[in-house]
Amino acid sequence: METVRVVKIGGNVVDHAEKLERFLGDFAGMGGKKVLVHGGGKIATSISQGLGIETRMIGGRRVTDAETLRIVTMVYAGLINKNIVAGLRGEGCHALGLCGVDGGLIRSRRRNPEPVDYGFVGDPVEFGLDTAVTLLDGGLVPVVAPITYDAEEGALLNTNADTVAQAVAVGLSARYAVELVYCFEKPGVLRDVADDSSVIPSIDPASYERLKAEGVVADGMLPKLENAFRAIEAGVQNVVICSAESLTCPGYGGTTLHQ
Amino acid sequence: METVRVVKIGGNVVDHAEKLERFLGDFAGMGGKKVLVHGGGKIATSISQGLGIETRMIGGRRVTDAETLRIVTMVYAGLINKNIVAGLRGEGCHALGLCGVDGGLIRSRRRNPEPVDYGFVGDPVEFGLDTAVTLLDGGLVPVVAPITYDAEEGALLNTNADTVAQAVAVGLSARYAVELVYCFEKPGVLRDVADDSSVIPSIDPASYERLKAEGVVADGMLPKLENAFRAIEAGVQNVVICSAESLTCPGYGGTTLHQ
Repeated sequence: METVRVVKIGGNVVDHAEKLERFLGDFAGMGGKKVLVHGGGKIATSISQGLGIETRMIGGRRVTDAETLRIVTMVYAGLINKNIVAGLRGEGCHALGLCGVDGGLIRSRRRNPEPVDYGFVGDPVEFGLDTAVTLLDGGLVPVVAPITYDAEEGALLNTNADTVAQAVAVGLSARYAVELVYCFEKPGVLRDVADDSSVIPSIDPASYERLKAEGVVADGMLPKLENAFRAIEAGVQNVVICSAESLTCPGYGGTTLHQ
Repeated sequence: METVRVVKIGGNVVDHAEKLERFLGDFAGMGGKKVLVHGGGKIATSISQGLGIETRMIGGRRVTDAETLRIVTMVYAGLINKNIVAGLRGEGCHALGLCGVDGGLIRSRRRNPEPVDYGFVGDPVEFGLDTAVTLLDGGLVPVVAPITYDAEEGALLNTNADTVAQAVAVGLSARYAVELVYCFEKPGVLRDVADDSSVIPSIDPASYERLKAEGVVADGMLPKLENAFRAIEAGVQNVVICSAESLTCPGYGGTTLHQ
């Protein structure tokens, strides 16, 4: 089976021009079929503020009202997506930007407004494998913005970029061997959170149980790893957690989760 | 040769929710391979004003400074493009939105700042036929926003949507029989500008010369027709000028220009 790599970068890279430029050069240099999923970052918030639209947060999460949906659609699927594609093309990468509505790439369902109404926020329910195969087999590199589409509601929806990356990876695993690479602030899963050199290179379900029992893996890392192992159960071969700066390193210098 | 229809709508449709909805339903219902090119409309201006960015015009044309480029990229390639794609998908059309940078669809060159500097504005110089063929043969319907990419400058550029439609049509004519349909405010080229029922159904180069000599075609219609005949000389089979409301009518109820 041919391999596809799905790489996700978050706002910490998107918001930082130098980091982003370096990352895009590294990503462009990766051989083989690949997909880039990007998050949003702070630009949407600053544009909302500029327009006098209040950003409402519940429990650290942005509430997407109708006005905010317009802003994130503009900023994520327009400004950020097209600038990333331009950056990649400048590096010789045959990138094509899209979001979940395009070609039906990611159909979502609006999240239940009970118990907490996050507004126009959706969770992926269906992947447009045909569209992805058309693009990948055409030699194109899809660059995916975290806006999805609920066909039943006829609405665009704001969607967590980690979840979008997972949906893309799981969807592609029906046809390809998929490696899902999450780039985040830390170089990987750390044995000692205060020591960036204590990266655990490899975790399987058995060692994951041990790390949990020992208390090495805790707090914010738990849901990330639960999600990663769910992706592996759903057909993704490997999930890697690493820094955006180490994409060219062996094993991405990060932690590889596998069966 | 297989036929592809390239349809262009302008801001007058984009800005008008009911007109747009009706148009998208009609466009979705058209059989065969097709491409939609859309213009910008007034949303970019109102968002610029909201953000306190001054819109500078020279001779009726917007000057695209760096801030304005950010806004039009957001609005055209993000907000408008994704909402049009959502509308088309709701009508069962397998739409995928993109702009000129995506897949190298339209490479442009920044317009010479002499004698008038319009800023980040570009004119198409190269069409990404491979990308277009990949999408069309994959059963997808490209929806194109009028933002292009100058690979030499590494810059996104604001581009006139009529020109984008023409570049798409001429580019596709290397492989397909292409019909280019310009939807505009009037039902077609009129024998009497005050009488919407006086549409001239068909014009060829010889009758065009007669219409010019008689003064029937004048003013703003002249550059439109010159452009259209240039597209025909460059390989496009027909150019139609019609109303967005008559897409389902025979001959689009408009004026067909041909060799």
